Amino acid sequence: MEFIMRGFIWRSSGVACAVLALSACATVSGKPSAQSLEKKNTEVVIAFTEMVFTKHQVAEAFKTYVGPTYKQHNPVVPDGIEAGVRGLTALTTVRQPEMYQEVKRTIAQGDLVLIHSRHIRNAEDKANGRGQSLMDIFRLENGKIVEHWDVVQEIPEKSANTNTMF
Amino acid sequence: MEFIMRGFIWRSSGVACAVLALSACATVSGKPSAQSLEKKNTEVVIAFTEMVFTKHQVAEAFKTYVGPTYKQHNPVVPDGIEAGVRGLTALTTVRQPEMYQEVKRTIAQGDLVLIHSRHIRNAEDKANGRGQSLMDIFRLENGKIVEHWDVVQEIPEKSANTNTMF
Repeated sequence: MEFIMRGFIWRSSGVACAVLALSACATVSGKPSAQSLEKKNTEVVIAFTEMVFTKHQVAEAFKTYVGPTYKQHNPVVPDGIEAGVRGLTALTTVRQPEMYQEVKRTIAQGDLVLIHSRHIRNAEDKANGRGQSLMDIFRLENGKIVEHWDVVQEIPEKSANTNTMF
Repeated sequence: MEFIMRGFIWRSSGVACAVLALSACATVSGKPSAQSLEKKNTEVVIAFTEMVFTKHQVAEAFKTYVGPTYKQHNPVVPDGIEAGVRGLTALTTVRQPEMYQEVKRTIAQGDLVLIHSRHIRNAEDKANGRGQSLMDIFRLENGKIVEHWDVVQEIPEKSANTNTMF
């Protein structure tokens, strides 16, 4: 409707034609806001995982980037925010205090963001260039993380190709 | 599109504005073609993985959906098309002839498509509701698959939550 109303204005003004063009853009593609949402969601996921796995500020990361609920699909972690904070705090302070992640690539569409990363757990992983390959998917609502799936695999000592797992 | 037609009818020079509106769409957002590309790439990846893992038509799947090169990051498979066909043919005919996949979700952005799926390898996996959780990323060029990364994890018997790995 806005398009038509602006179209009427254009009859007497060339400037309005440019406005009309921009309005049509939003109407025809319908996607500019989706693209900026995906970009913002990706930034949230990178910031969250780096704050957890590299900076080890787990409680702060959940407070900043996780929504009111957190549905967990990782089978070794109980559901919910409290269990997530507890499990990742134990991981990054007690079990693997030297750990950090290297983000290799992300893929975002709609409310989902995939992050493919290498986890270096200790000096041995760093020295031998291995560690774990992880793909984590996060679902976001209103700019906050609310759901998590992952698949984790140990990087083997020998590979059938020279391309690495990344 | 309807409003542009109305613009054309409604004023003799309205057609120029309609052209401007469509041009602005492509210029300002720059993404309509990217979105249709992502949709098409996703269709290719789903068709390819279903043809390989459920229909077990490996050579046909590579012939139809894989490009002139195939860069392999799975550490147990050598690089290239020939090794991919050989490895997946052995997997789906000799080692796991009963296998099939369930596609759980996809995420596409740019030239990458992520597919999260459950692999049911045999009657035992089917009966106990487990099998493997896989996240595969494919990179496409000109509508054909040219690169592959994956992470594979056994679905455990017991989980700390009731959400499943999917």
